[in-house]
Amino acid sequence: MSKGKLWIVGLGPGPAHWITPEATSALEQAGDIVGYGPYVDRIAPRPDQRRHCSDNRAELQRAKQALALASSGAHVAVVSGGDPGVFAMAAAVFEAVECGDAAWRALHIEVLPGISAMQAAAARLGAPLGHDFCAISLSDNLKSWDVVARRLKAAAEGDFVIALYNPASKARPTRVHDAFSLLRTHRATTTPVAFARAIGRPDERIVLATLGDADPGIADMSTLVMIGSSETRLIDRGEARPWLLTPRSYGGAR
Amino acid sequence: MSKGKLWIVGLGPGPAHWITPEATSALEQAGDIVGYGPYVDRIAPRPDQRRHCSDNRAELQRAKQALALASSGAHVAVVSGGDPGVFAMAAAVFEAVECGDAAWRALHIEVLPGISAMQAAAARLGAPLGHDFCAISLSDNLKSWDVVARRLKAAAEGDFVIALYNPASKARPTRVHDAFSLLRTHRATTTPVAFARAIGRPDERIVLATLGDADPGIADMSTLVMIGSSETRLIDRGEARPWLLTPRSYGGAR
Repeated sequence: MSKGKLWIVGLGPGPAHWITPEATSALEQAGDIVGYGPYVDRIAPRPDQRRHCSDNRAELQRAKQALALASSGAHVAVVSGGDPGVFAMAAAVFEAVECGDAAWRALHIEVLPGISAMQAAAARLGAPLGHDFCAISLSDNLKSWDVVARRLKAAAEGDFVIALYNPASKARPTRVHDAFSLLRTHRATTTPVAFARAIGRPDERIVLATLGDADPGIADMSTLVMIGSSETRLIDRGEARPWLLTPRSYGGAR
Repeated sequence: MSKGKLWIVGLGPGPAHWITPEATSALEQAGDIVGYGPYVDRIAPRPDQRRHCSDNRAELQRAKQALALASSGAHVAVVSGGDPGVFAMAAAVFEAVECGDAAWRALHIEVLPGISAMQAAAARLGAPLGHDFCAISLSDNLKSWDVVARRLKAAAEGDFVIALYNPASKARPTRVHDAFSLLRTHRATTTPVAFARAIGRPDERIVLATLGDADPGIADMSTLVMIGSSETRLIDRGEARPWLLTPRSYGGAR
């Protein structure tokens, strides 16, 4: 039995003050750091730590590399932006386990949760996730548009607040426009919408709009798009940016 | 203009290693700690800090108290379990702002995100949230059963992974049973289901089942219930608890 360890570490959206002590401790103990280059770059280099950077789209290959290292006895941290469990590296690692070496199932693997982009955005905006919500990735390489459309329609019918991850796609730049077109047929044009970009990082930027007048083209790869439910509203603050609120009650229920 | 401050602080699910440095820093700076008793109890008492404990259901009153304190110039931390933005104190505070003293809109209010129960549960289980998901609170005091039923149906139609918060209710103990009955009419009986109780705390307990054979009655106030999509599956590990995986791809798409 190998004594290797594999931690799947959530680095949160960017700033150090959003990294949990558990994640920090795992990064200190790791002998190998595996991840997408920009995430690995967030960790200060140490001469006794090996760093393995790979491309954004190479998740499964990266997962296999990390599992092979842990299997050989290494203490490995696979780093992920946000929460590794939410549209990130945890699924890739367990997919690799499922289809890989049977011995990998006996490895010590731990997922260390982190602050996801949706939560960072919500925190800056006020309380848009105060009631039921759903999270949908618009990433186009692992599911068909039919699946996305079906989920957007269901989310609209359920009147959920919607957090859209990965709204921009070089391969299919019209996808976020299509998503807005679909939602506009279900939800009032006055519905508050927020584009929360790079929250917590130096280039943080928030744009508030309504579903009717929003330009979804401003969403890039670092943007989380939040679309309100029928209950979501703005709290006016004069010249300051209004807060976004989805109250805990629904339809006037007390 | 008051120089008071109000932080709405996420304490995460329980253990100190899941509290962000940002939250810890706010708790150090605060002169007043406001919250539901068991959450305030997690913070070591300090002679120079005032503590204001209130009952679980008194969220709006607690929010008003915190706003009034901040308005008088105090540095106030409202503490919340999990992430304050997810079914927690952030919405209560902004509801109080909306209907309260106009001067409260000029206050310095910051939401400090935390690890939510859904993320802690997902981390322990493997990667159940690797694909689109939704979060629904079964709490019965602020929305009607019709709204819950409509959302469960929509979530089923969208084939989302579903995280159920607040599954137990003293007032209406049949609610979680009704939710399972509804979901059983939409989703295969073999769908994996997890009951993740008090994750990260000494009395942590995980029960895996299928939608068909699960007993929803085991869910108490500290339980997060996770219900798989049609793609969610188990990774067998012999005698160890299997991992739960919702892959990043859908319907065999690559």
